[in-house]
Amino acid sequence: MNQKIVIVGGVAGGATAAARLRRLNEQAEIVLFEKGEYISFANCGLPYYIGGTIPQRDKLLLQSVEGMSKKFNMDIRNLSEVIRIDRANKKVVIKDLRTNNEYEESYDKLILSPGAKPIKPAIPGIEDANNLFTLRNIPDTDKIKSHVDTNNIKKAVVIGGGFIGLEMAENLVDLGIDVSLIEASNQVMAPLDSEMAAMVHEHLVQKGVTLHLGDGVQSFEANGTKVNVTSGAHVDTDMIILSIGVTPENTLAKDADLALGVRGTIVVNEHLQTEDEDIYAIGDAIQVTDYVNGTPTMIPLAWPANRQGRLVADHINGLQATYNGTMGTAIAKVFDLTVASTGNNEKTLQRLNIPYRAIHIHPVSHAGYYPGGAPIALKLLFDEQTGRILGAQAVGKTGVDKRIDVIATAMKGNLTVHDLQDLELAYAPPYSSAKDPVNMAGYVAGNIMDEMVETVQWHEIDEIIANGGIVVDVREPIEREAGYISGTLNIPLGAIRERLTELPKDKAIYVSCQVGLRGYLASRILTQHGYKAINVDGGYKTYKYGHY
Amino acid sequence: MNQKIVIVGGVAGGATAAARLRRLNEQAEIVLFEKGEYISFANCGLPYYIGGTIPQRDKLLLQSVEGMSKKFNMDIRNLSEVIRIDRANKKVVIKDLRTNNEYEESYDKLILSPGAKPIKPAIPGIEDANNLFTLRNIPDTDKIKSHVDTNNIKKAVVIGGGFIGLEMAENLVDLGIDVSLIEASNQVMAPLDSEMAAMVHEHLVQKGVTLHLGDGVQSFEANGTKVNVTSGAHVDTDMIILSIGVTPENTLAKDADLALGVRGTIVVNEHLQTEDEDIYAIGDAIQVTDYVNGTPTMIPLAWPANRQGRLVADHINGLQATYNGTMGTAIAKVFDLTVASTGNNEKTLQRLNIPYRAIHIHPVSHAGYYPGGAPIALKLLFDEQTGRILGAQAVGKTGVDKRIDVIATAMKGNLTVHDLQDLELAYAPPYSSAKDPVNMAGYVAGNIMDEMVETVQWHEIDEIIANGGIVVDVREPIEREAGYISGTLNIPLGAIRERLTELPKDKAIYVSCQVGLRGYLASRILTQHGYKAINVDGGYKTYKYGHY
Ligand SMILES: Cc1cc2nc3c(=O)[nH]c(=O)nc-3n(C[C@H](O)[C@H](O)[C@H](O)COP(=O)(O)OP(=O)(O)OC[C@H]3O[C@@H](n4cnc5c(N)ncnc54)[C@H](O)[C@@H]3O)c2cc1C
Ligand SMILES: Cc1cc2nc3c(=O)[nH]c(=O)nc-3n(C[C@H](O)[C@H](O)[C@H](O)COP(=O)(O)OP(=O)(O)OC[C@H]3O[C@@H](n4cnc5c(N)ncnc54)[C@H](O)[C@@H]3O)c2cc1C
Ligand SMILES: CC(C)(COP(=O)(O)OP(=O)(O)OC[C@H]1O[C@@H](n2cnc3c(N)ncnc32)[C@H](O)[C@@H]1OP(=O)(O)O)[C@@H](O)C(=O)NCCC(=O)NCCS
Ligand SMILES: CC(C)(COP(=O)(O)OP(=O)(O)OC[C@H]1O[C@@H](n2cnc3c(N)ncnc32)[C@H](O)[C@@H]1OP(=O)(O)O)[C@@H](O)C(=O)NCCC(=O)NCCS
Repeated sequence: MNQKIVIVGGVAGGATAAARLRRLNEQAEIVLFEKGEYISFANCGLPYYIGGTIPQRDKLLLQSVEGMSKKFNMDIRNLSEVIRIDRANKKVVIKDLRTNNEYEESYDKLILSPGAKPIKPAIPGIEDANNLFTLRNIPDTDKIKSHVDTNNIKKAVVIGGGFIGLEMAENLVDLGIDVSLIEASNQVMAPLDSEMAAMVHEHLVQKGVTLHLGDGVQSFEANGTKVNVTSGAHVDTDMIILSIGVTPENTLAKDADLALGVRGTIVVNEHLQTEDEDIYAIGDAIQVTDYVNGTPTMIPLAWPANRQGRLVADHINGLQATYNGTMGTAIAKVFDLTVASTGNNEKTLQRLNIPYRAIHIHPVSHAGYYPGGAPIALKLLFDEQTGRILGAQAVGKTGVDKRIDVIATAMKGNLTVHDLQDLELAYAPPYSSAKDPVNMAGYVAGNIMDEMVETVQWHEIDEIIANGGIVVDVREPIEREAGYISGTLNIPLGAIRERLTELPKDKAIYVSCQVGLRGYLASRILTQHGYKAINVDGGYKTYKYGHY
Repeated sequence: MNQKIVIVGGVAGGATAAARLRRLNEQAEIVLFEKGEYISFANCGLPYYIGGTIPQRDKLLLQSVEGMSKKFNMDIRNLSEVIRIDRANKKVVIKDLRTNNEYEESYDKLILSPGAKPIKPAIPGIEDANNLFTLRNIPDTDKIKSHVDTNNIKKAVVIGGGFIGLEMAENLVDLGIDVSLIEASNQVMAPLDSEMAAMVHEHLVQKGVTLHLGDGVQSFEANGTKVNVTSGAHVDTDMIILSIGVTPENTLAKDADLALGVRGTIVVNEHLQTEDEDIYAIGDAIQVTDYVNGTPTMIPLAWPANRQGRLVADHINGLQATYNGTMGTAIAKVFDLTVASTGNNEKTLQRLNIPYRAIHIHPVSHAGYYPGGAPIALKLLFDEQTGRILGAQAVGKTGVDKRIDVIATAMKGNLTVHDLQDLELAYAPPYSSAKDPVNMAGYVAGNIMDEMVETVQWHEIDEIIANGGIVVDVREPIEREAGYISGTLNIPLGAIRERLTELPKDKAIYVSCQVGLRGYLASRILTQHGYKAINVDGGYKTYKYGHY
């Protein structure tokens, strides 16, 4: 039976589905509609073409309409917008954007991969801001690039500190432009918790980006050359990149009475079918199940779109194909830093009332004695009862992607924090340590589960001190010169056994060091000498960023 | 109950066990004997100190006798060789190497972590070769470094192409020395299969190393300045590094009548206890169970030593502690290449008659359009019935460590090749592709299991052609100019649908391309048009290295 499959959207999800459909079935009739001029382009490369890291525009175009049509023997129609779905008659209505003609095309199966569009709220003055851009596709990119190239841009405002905003900030700085980043929440990179995001803030400032955090845009003035923020201040600028998130392209689905979910996403089942079993939906536009907490959510990233594209083709061809939810593994290069995360963060777990424990460690990316290593700030969230890994975040200059990928893999394998100790990872000095940072995270988390140590978090310690708690800093005096938690005593680790008598046995003794390791050692000593010792997780370094 | 624990060997396994023992128990009496001058040094950094990448010698010394004694409140005695175990009386006899005095020390538990020593066979002339060195510890390193620094060395011979030999070759080249590498087997890096090792061979030659493969050392002449090889040739040299492997330090165990296993390793149970339950053994000296195939083996690497050191301390303190076998995950930097592997290779699986399938892919380490990526040659071995992953090997300039670690993690999680498709790995252009190389390996292996494609291996194709088989190269004609499998027809992928009639339907059609992807696409087309198509796995690139 020759099926006719119509696909709406010709980029990540749509093009992948089309390619796999053809591989699975040489006879199927495949018609792909794309409203834009280009199919199969590298959305994720766009900021780097603007900044010049990717010098050639054609590198962004992975497949051409002609090339892909021929290679996969399919009917690809660009500049063709699908404007309506006629579910009863299994037809779509297409508007040819070259001619404005409308026509119909029937389908046996319909795949929607329309993506998402940048959110553009009705901020006063936005209509007149002719220097304001959003970034989603090649025409957007061309517009931004030509604006930058021809207008001698000196100052730019980026609104929104998500990964696209940060990538644009970096790329504009690379072009010698003075960048101000305006972000309404108190941190960039929402998948991170605040103490982790603080490292990104510090780095952005070091790179010359002016940060306006916790400060929303109030209005635009003077055709967008003046941006007023809620705090009352304003920023003068030559251009604006608006990147405050995306909203699903759901018009087709909505008009066809298909159920919508979270944030207007298209609801699908585990086979990626909408309420209408002949209509599939994939990619940025759909609602997915959060892999960790099971709630419905929207996770607009390229991996899910690609994965779903392949699965949908399989399902249409009668193969087993189940999408198991999205973890949200994400990564961004922010100047010299790599910022990555997987699973849930603390904010999400708190919101959903999911019990968790957090650890923060700061191991070096590879053997300390081999040049080129750098600390990785690694945060792991886990269930203390079962050891289940709930999420991880990492920030550092090198080796960050590897550790997040390993943890994401462990999560797919249902490995616990104890199992992380057992991961036999590749070690030679240029790549890791004999105890890899991920092993170390397993040890530190395992010690909490095994009741080897009690810990408190960076955000709890000020109140503890305010209430008269005893906090001992076990670093060397010279280390305190670069900063310490005020109200702490100082007994270096090496002296702790001799100076035990200085500490009371009837009160909890909080112990703090630089990253948590020596505090742990001190806690073990104290505990075994009959003290109630509690280690400040992640040490002063975590505390410092928590208070950045 | 205060236990007295005696440890033999103060480096990777021994020092780690000691540290954890103290953390677990502040009261235990811990006595650590090390026959060398130094404890807790970075064995793995030694070649890089010789080559100058690590400039300071003291960076190699992680803990000093004094520092560690104080920090962990333990009794550490260097230059103290344990020369006998008196199991009946639970005592060891120690020789103080400063004074040559012998004395006894009792133990409740004894931990042996004596490591392994370089193999030094009785090759004719070896005794007079005063320019011949092995490398295991700091004194060895000092000797090599001073030989190199003071003797105006121009030419060196490295015997043995394992990771230490290759690291030494690189570091000597870094010093401007002309290096010849002599390896008796036909390949370097035994954990790799030959077609993977061939990439390392090519790279070594590019870096100016003279390779003598499949050529053993016959004898040394003229105090080691002339090395005669089995083929009849000889190499003149100013110095020799002998690195043909290690043999377990088993004298103590053997003399104490503890069972020895494979290659003279000390036999232990899953709690790392020898036949004598009060004597534990860990590290390079012990027999471990191969995680994949279950057979006993010796895997002298730092991760196992560190892991076992901690487990042994746990077990002695009554905690749950089971060592689950060793996968052998290993990695080495070889000039600009990273070479890594985990699990079993094809040679091992063949030797043990374990059924397997192999795939070879050559994806780019990250998005092709973003600068800095490089191809990764990734080989995956799996069980076709169950999808179980049996092993993986990877060679490339960047991103290799990450992929092997992800696969090693997947193996610990008992994930199948189909599950690799589902791994949600961090994607942004500088780090990966929307389908990561590991996902891709999952797709390619999954397609074999799902009977989407049949494949043959690089080593099968010459015979197929010799027997009159039809092999179609589906690359563009211009690509063939850089080399092709002789005896192949050329029908570019784009023309295959039109030129089907040129091919017979009654014979198998073998299809080949550059890396296997287009061959797969062509196979799918051919199969669905009623041909029996078989793809040459890994394409011409794999074939080429297989025949290097
Ligand atoms: C600048 C930028 C950087 C990014 N970087 C990353 C990154 O580093 N990592 C990552 O994981 N993700 C990244 N993404 C997100 C990633 O590109 C998306 O998640 C992915 O492309 C989603 O695939 P999709 O198929 O759902 O939508 P898209 O790839 O956007 O494709 C949807 C297509 O459908 C077309 N379309 C919509 N409606 C219709 C219609 N009615 N008729 C015809 N055609 C229609 C659209 O024109 C569009 O071309 C980035 C996105 C952008 C914009
Ligand atoms: C040059 C080099 C590079 C390496 N690179 C890597 C790498 O990149 N990755 C990797 O995974 N592994 C690497 N290794 C291997 C790694 O160092 C070992 O696997 C690890 O050190 C084994 O730990 P161990 O405790 O068993 O033995 P060791 O660390 O060797 O410690 C054993 C100690 O016991 C002492 N000893 C022996 N007998 C006695 C006795 N009777 N009395 C007292 N003391 C005794 C020895 O003097 C020695 O110091 C490398 C090794 C070398 C030599
Ligand atoms: C370019 C595009 C059409 C490619 O789709 P695709 O053909 O599915 O993907 P690839 O070219 O990577 O090929 C993957 C296929 O080749 C196979 N393959 C890959 N390497 C192989 C090899 N060495 N040997 C055999 N088969 C191989 C895989 O198994 C897979 O086939 P399958 O799905 O049938 O199992 C689509 O991904 C796209 O448009 N991407 C751009 C948009 C985008 O993703 N944007 C977001 C990120 S910037
Ligand atoms: C240096 C050496 C003595 C260290 O042993 P160690 O104390 O077990 O290891 P580390 O210093 O890495 O510390 C690990 C401990 O600190 C804990 N830790 C690490 N970071 C922490 C943090 N941020 N917060 C709290 N605890 C932390 C870990 O949980 C672990 O403790 P545990 O085993 O009780 O769970 C030993 O590994 C050694 O001698 N190594 C050199 C030889 C060698 O390994 N050679 C081969 C490779 S070159």
